[in-house]
Amino acid sequence: MTRDVAIIGVGLTKFGELWETSFRNLITDAGMKAILDCKVTGEDIDALYVGSMSSGQFVNQELVAPLVLDSAGLADSHIPTTRVEGAGASGGMAFRQAFLAVASGQVDVAIAGGVEKMTDVPEREVTKILGAASDQEWEAFLGATDPALHALIAKRHMEKHGTTREQLARVAVQNHKHGAQNPSAQFQKEITVETVLGSPLIADPLRVFDTAPASDGAAAIILCPLDEAESYTSRPVRIAGSGQGSDYLSLAARQSLVTFEATKHAARSAYKSAGIEAKDVDVCEVHDSYTINQLLAIEDLGFCKKGEGGAYTARGETALTGAHPINPSGGLKARGHPLGATGIAQICELTWQLRREAGPRQVKNPQWALAQNTGGTGAAAVVHILEAAK
Amino acid sequence: MTRDVAIIGVGLTKFGELWETSFRNLITDAGMKAILDCKVTGEDIDALYVGSMSSGQFVNQELVAPLVLDSAGLADSHIPTTRVEGAGASGGMAFRQAFLAVASGQVDVAIAGGVEKMTDVPEREVTKILGAASDQEWEAFLGATDPALHALIAKRHMEKHGTTREQLARVAVQNHKHGAQNPSAQFQKEITVETVLGSPLIADPLRVFDTAPASDGAAAIILCPLDEAESYTSRPVRIAGSGQGSDYLSLAARQSLVTFEATKHAARSAYKSAGIEAKDVDVCEVHDSYTINQLLAIEDLGFCKKGEGGAYTARGETALTGAHPINPSGGLKARGHPLGATGIAQICELTWQLRREAGPRQVKNPQWALAQNTGGTGAAAVVHILEAAK
Repeated sequence: MTRDVAIIGVGLTKFGELWETSFRNLITDAGMKAILDCKVTGEDIDALYVGSMSSGQFVNQELVAPLVLDSAGLADSHIPTTRVEGAGASGGMAFRQAFLAVASGQVDVAIAGGVEKMTDVPEREVTKILGAASDQEWEAFLGATDPALHALIAKRHMEKHGTTREQLARVAVQNHKHGAQNPSAQFQKEITVETVLGSPLIADPLRVFDTAPASDGAAAIILCPLDEAESYTSRPVRIAGSGQGSDYLSLAARQSLVTFEATKHAARSAYKSAGIEAKDVDVCEVHDSYTINQLLAIEDLGFCKKGEGGAYTARGETALTGAHPINPSGGLKARGHPLGATGIAQICELTWQLRREAGPRQVKNPQWALAQNTGGTGAAAVVHILEAAK
Repeated sequence: MTRDVAIIGVGLTKFGELWETSFRNLITDAGMKAILDCKVTGEDIDALYVGSMSSGQFVNQELVAPLVLDSAGLADSHIPTTRVEGAGASGGMAFRQAFLAVASGQVDVAIAGGVEKMTDVPEREVTKILGAASDQEWEAFLGATDPALHALIAKRHMEKHGTTREQLARVAVQNHKHGAQNPSAQFQKEITVETVLGSPLIADPLRVFDTAPASDGAAAIILCPLDEAESYTSRPVRIAGSGQGSDYLSLAARQSLVTFEATKHAARSAYKSAGIEAKDVDVCEVHDSYTINQLLAIEDLGFCKKGEGGAYTARGETALTGAHPINPSGGLKARGHPLGATGIAQICELTWQLRREAGPRQVKNPQWALAQNTGGTGAAAVVHILEAAK
C-alpha cells in the first residue's frame, strides 16, 4: 500500500420498516448525505463500491452498482461501479475494497455504500434468505435456520464457559440503551432484562430480543488520500488498519463453535497495520446480529479472554463509560440490521465518535476506533481500525 | 499501480446442463484445474475473489466466497475471500479485483473464480432472474424481459445502420463454428444461417439461436507478480491493461441504444494502460449474450466503425483467419454462458491462445488479446488486455 487514506464524508439513512421508500432511494439518500458532509462533488468520485447481501432475492434487482450511480445522477461519469457480497459483512467488504483502491493509488476519491431493503417480502421469506448465508447443502437444506445455528453457538458458550441467559440479555439491554440516544436507530427505546427473558423463544436459548431486526436502510462513506483530505473537510478520520478473514461455512466443520477464526484473522491484520493492540481501542462497533455474537466478538477481538464475554458485559465494561465501549450506535440490535448497510453504518458511527459529534452517546475523547462486521455464522469477517485526526 | 501482474494458471469446467454436479463442485473443479496448471499450492494463495451473478436466486446460496475456499479444502488459511457481482460481468469484475490486489502489492498470489449453476430452476425462473440485471422498476416490472430489451437494441441497429437479419445470424454461425472445435463448449456443433432464421422467434427480431443458453459452469485463474511468475510457470501471460465502466441501467435513459458507453469507457482505460490501439489486438473474446451484442462490441472496441459490425462480420473479418478474430472459444453463444463464469472463461481462452495451446481453434501467432465482458444490457463492462510472454 502506497499511501494513507482518510474518511472525509459519511451519510446514513434512518433504519427501520421504511415502506414509503425504495432500495434505490435509500442508497441515493445515503450517498447524497455523504457528499453533503464534505466538499466533494459527484464529479470528483472515481470509483464506487456497494455492499448488498441479497438484493436479488429481496427486490429482484442485481447489478445494483451501476443502478446506484444512475440513481445519484452520476451515470454520465461512466466510472467503475462494483457490488461486493459477503452476507452481513457485505458493507465492510465494500468499504475495504474502496480503501484498497485509494490506498494503492488506483483512484483518488472513492465512495463505498451499503444497502438492503428487507421488509418488502413476507417474514418467512426473510428467514429463508438469511439461511442463504449458511451452508445451503449441509445446514439450511436440512432445516437449520440462521437463528437455530446461532442458538447452537450460544448453547455451547453457556455449557463450556458458564455464560448465563441473563448475561446474554444484558447485551441487548445495553445496546437498546445506546440506541435510545441515536436518532437513526430503528428502536429508540430502552428495555430490561425481563423484556428479553419474557420475549418469545425462537431457537432455545435465543429469544426475539436476542436478535437484530429485519430492516431497510443504507449508508455511504467517501474516502480520499489523507494528504488530500483537507481540501474536502476539516475533520478527516484516518483508516489505520484493514483486515479480512474467512472460515468454514458450516459450523460442523469448525474446530470450535465459540471462536470466529475469521474475526481473529481479520483483527490480527488490522491491529498489525495500525500498530495498536486491543487495549488501545477506545470505541468499537461489533456485529451483534445475535446477542451471543457480541460476546464472541469482544472475546475474539481481545478485549477480554475467551469465555469471559458474558461476565465482562455484566460488569459494565462495554458500556459507554466502560473500559471498552461497544456499539454506542445501539448496534445491529437497536440501530437495525439492513444486511449490506450494516458494515458501512458501523464506520459512520465511529467517524462521528472520532469527530466528537455523537451527541448524548459520545464516548469520551476516543483516539482509536474499531469496527467488526461478520457474515453468516462468522464465515466472513472484516475489521477496520480508525484514528482521530491529530 | 506498483508492479506488473501475470496469469500463471487457468482452469475451466465443461459448460452445459450439468445436472450431475453442484455449484460448489463446479467452482472447486475449476480452481483445482487452475492450481494444477502451475506450480502453485493452495498454501501459496493470499486472496480469493469469485464472481457470481445470482447464486442466491439460483441455488439459494449467498456468502459464496468462503464456501469456495472451504470446498477447496483451504478454509484453514482463513484468507480474505470476496464475492463480486455485476450480472454477466461478475467474472470480469472478480478478475479485475484480483488483478488490482496483486498490482498494488497488497497480496502476492490471488485466485479469481467465476461460477453459476443456472439449470436447477425452471426455465421461466431463468427469465425472471435475468430480468434482475435490467432496471427492475422501469423495465422488468413493466414486462420488458432481457430478450425484449436486446430486441429493441437490435431493431434500432437495423433501422439506423441497415444491419440485416442475416448479418446477425452470421454471428451465431461463426461462433458455433469456433465452438465446434472447443471440447469445453456447451454446443460443439456447426449451424447455418438457415438454422438461426428458422429457429423460434423470442422477441422480434431475435430468435432462439441469437441468444446464449442458460448454462452451468465455472472457471478460475491464478495471478501473481510478473517478476515472480517464472517460479510457478514457464508460460506466463502479462495483464497489460484493465478497464471498467458503467452506464445508465435502463435503456430509456441513454443517449443511444446502439452504443455501450460502459464498454467504450472500459476500453479507453485498458488501451491506454496497455499502450496499444484496437488495430493491435490479435485475438478477442467479447460478450455475445445476444448476437446484436457482438456487433456492438466490435464497434465499441474500435475494430470497425459504428454501424458497420454486421457487414464487417459478413466479410469474415472476425473469423479465426480474419483481421480481428472474435470468440475463438465459441463465445457465450456456443461455449455457453454460466453468468458469473463467463468473464473468467474468456480470459482462460485468451491465455490458451497466447500460449499457443488452443489446438484446432488457435489464432496464428497472437501477441495481444482482449476480453470484453458486460452485464445486463451493457450497464457494466470490463475490458482486459493480455500480452504473450516475450
